[in-house]
Amino acid sequence: MNLRERSSAAQLLAGLVRRELSAETLARACLERIAALEPTVHAFAHLDHEKVLAEARELDRGAVRGPLHGLPIGVKDIMDTHDAPTEYGSPIYRGHRPAADAACVALARTQGALVFGKTVTTEFACFPPGPTANPRNPAHTPGGSSSGSAAAVACGMLPAAFGTQTAGSVIRPAAFCGVAGYKPTWGTLPRVGVKMISDTLDTIGMFGRSVEDAALVVSALSGRESLRAREPAAAPRLAVCLTPQWPAARPETRSLFDDLEARLSAAGARAGTVSLPAAFDGLAEAHAAIWDYEIARCLADEHRRFRDRVREPLRSQLDRGWSISPALYDAAHELARACRRALAAAMGDFDALVVPSAPGEAPMGLEATGDPVFNRIWTLLHVPAVHVPLGTGPKGLPLGVQLVGGIGEDATVLACASWVERRLRIRAE
Amino acid sequence: MNLRERSSAAQLLAGLVRRELSAETLARACLERIAALEPTVHAFAHLDHEKVLAEARELDRGAVRGPLHGLPIGVKDIMDTHDAPTEYGSPIYRGHRPAADAACVALARTQGALVFGKTVTTEFACFPPGPTANPRNPAHTPGGSSSGSAAAVACGMLPAAFGTQTAGSVIRPAAFCGVAGYKPTWGTLPRVGVKMISDTLDTIGMFGRSVEDAALVVSALSGRESLRAREPAAAPRLAVCLTPQWPAARPETRSLFDDLEARLSAAGARAGTVSLPAAFDGLAEAHAAIWDYEIARCLADEHRRFRDRVREPLRSQLDRGWSISPALYDAAHELARACRRALAAAMGDFDALVVPSAPGEAPMGLEATGDPVFNRIWTLLHVPAVHVPLGTGPKGLPLGVQLVGGIGEDATVLACASWVERRLRIRAE
Repeated sequence: MNLRERSSAAQLLAGLVRRELSAETLARACLERIAALEPTVHAFAHLDHEKVLAEARELDRGAVRGPLHGLPIGVKDIMDTHDAPTEYGSPIYRGHRPAADAACVALARTQGALVFGKTVTTEFACFPPGPTANPRNPAHTPGGSSSGSAAAVACGMLPAAFGTQTAGSVIRPAAFCGVAGYKPTWGTLPRVGVKMISDTLDTIGMFGRSVEDAALVVSALSGRESLRAREPAAAPRLAVCLTPQWPAARPETRSLFDDLEARLSAAGARAGTVSLPAAFDGLAEAHAAIWDYEIARCLADEHRRFRDRVREPLRSQLDRGWSISPALYDAAHELARACRRALAAAMGDFDALVVPSAPGEAPMGLEATGDPVFNRIWTLLHVPAVHVPLGTGPKGLPLGVQLVGGIGEDATVLACASWVERRLRIRAE
Repeated sequence: MNLRERSSAAQLLAGLVRRELSAETLARACLERIAALEPTVHAFAHLDHEKVLAEARELDRGAVRGPLHGLPIGVKDIMDTHDAPTEYGSPIYRGHRPAADAACVALARTQGALVFGKTVTTEFACFPPGPTANPRNPAHTPGGSSSGSAAAVACGMLPAAFGTQTAGSVIRPAAFCGVAGYKPTWGTLPRVGVKMISDTLDTIGMFGRSVEDAALVVSALSGRESLRAREPAAAPRLAVCLTPQWPAARPETRSLFDDLEARLSAAGARAGTVSLPAAFDGLAEAHAAIWDYEIARCLADEHRRFRDRVREPLRSQLDRGWSISPALYDAAHELARACRRALAAAMGDFDALVVPSAPGEAPMGLEATGDPVFNRIWTLLHVPAVHVPLGTGPKGLPLGVQLVGGIGEDATVLACASWVERRLRIRAE
């Protein structure tokens, strides 16, 4: 079969489950793509070709295991795997071999997925970058912290890959690499065995070539059939929302959002605008306080025993976390709870908000992974967020939009995102 | 010094910090007590005498590290330690050596505590028991899942020890062993490096010989000075609440609660009664559904690769978890959220509710750890809960009461609990 013609996860799975496509054939195609591009992209922290092929053959020999049977999936190296090194992007954990799979990895295997190596994470899924380059232009960052997963999916190495998001680590790399990224409602996928850096923020997400693909995989992992991204029955009600972070938007994002409401209307949506209440202005700062406070505690052992082996700016973040008072931390959570309650009223009868995913195209250079400024508040609110790739900006790098909605309203947000994905295209001016 | 006369953690710490008591002297006293009682009690999963003494001497040589300097603390063997085996009470993890300390363990070390061995946990902190016996009567269960921690504190092996609670794993063993147990508001202590069995229920707690001791340690670990259990400035407002689980109360608990309001009044409290709204009737079942659903996912790797090495009734619980639909799970969380909102109104202007900690005295036999029926709803509500030991029941085994309050109202609940602890005593009829 021609993999290029049937490259969506949904199509691949149809072939795999019907046994028209063998897991080994698909794995070999992925390995070929990796062999060609990995020297430039550096998406993988660990990959064992022979092991992947052996497992693919085992899948081909046995019965169909589940809805993800034979689907290659990348696992961010912040997630434990019992059969591969797991280094969390940190020299402290060089060669570390966990005893167990992270729960989300075990779920993927139970559903038949072919765990296809570990993808590069920034250090402890924070700001110090890994070696991954943006496959659209390797002089630019792929974003982070799920750098390898986003890049691997973007350049066709893999049809799907795990990410995690504490600030913007799914949506931002999806935006910079031009793939779909889906951060479900907080708590949708279990986090045991993930090296957590914030108990109240960390959320497991998924990258796919399309919204449908990312949603399909999370649907299988969570047993939530409703997450299969079907298009809405009626015209979606979409509100453009510039958010309190709008001053951080770069010209390409300003240009995109200038006529976004009109474009959505022209495409058939019932479009409007929403302004968030003033209380939301403090959410980004609240997010930063909560993350700093919690990461200092989550990485208390590393900070205590190996502080010198933690790179900047993470080391400063850990130090900073110890200076945040419980009172400030509690107030940040209180604001988040208040804004969660207020969000439904702010959204009115809109199905989803259309907001920026990132300030603009992926910045030049691999020394930093860009700014999660447009992601912090949605992560803190625990709401579903989806990046929809729409085209390219003035530098030829990907641009798109983020759709967010109410807690637990993942199916609605995914359906709207899929609708937008199919109808809106942008190109460089 | 005479350790018996100064046996509270607060008193010991005063001596340790002033250097009137050396960490080594205290450690030796604990080791002597352990040598005498461990053959009967079996509180420890791992204990390295020489290592403990070496670390004690190191603490004695250096500067005072923090508010817990030199305090021996037991670590439930569901918590990772980088320098000792961590087996989670499961044969699957025999001899397992984690790479890092759990965050709570690292926090304890940072504050100067002397990590004093790993205490017995039931299998994955669930129902299959460990070998620990109740130090008050070794023919009876110490409760679980934090069996070794509760027993070690109860018989004077240690002044404090960590527990975790998913259903009733702090409060129940505290009640059965006759020590103070404190389950803080959910999220107070970080859970990274604890083998989690429910993301939305698991809470790290503490055992102490008194409420003040348990509160003191959590205060130091969390940096929350307010948790130091000071007695309330005015007469505490305490409501006796029989909870929807009252039919499970055994005669000794019925007898205790029969005149509890009168006794509280006589002791000087502004006492009353509270009945919980009808919606709370479904909380215990909601708790069970959430736990079953989440534990099946948290232990997905163990279930997939080692199902035969999981003991009953845990194996059935894992199987059962896969049959719970996301819709039922979501509804259970929705009920919990509604009841959290309703609790403040139900409590009126009372500071805390006084509720049963367990059905009655510790049951005979070591084949089971007793019923968490009186703990499930408070764990699900995320509220602070404190077990206050009050005396003994008809079999000469410990009896007491549980105090609970609003989310984040830990300081108030602890102060009330300390007040009750000093003024109420019961003895066998």
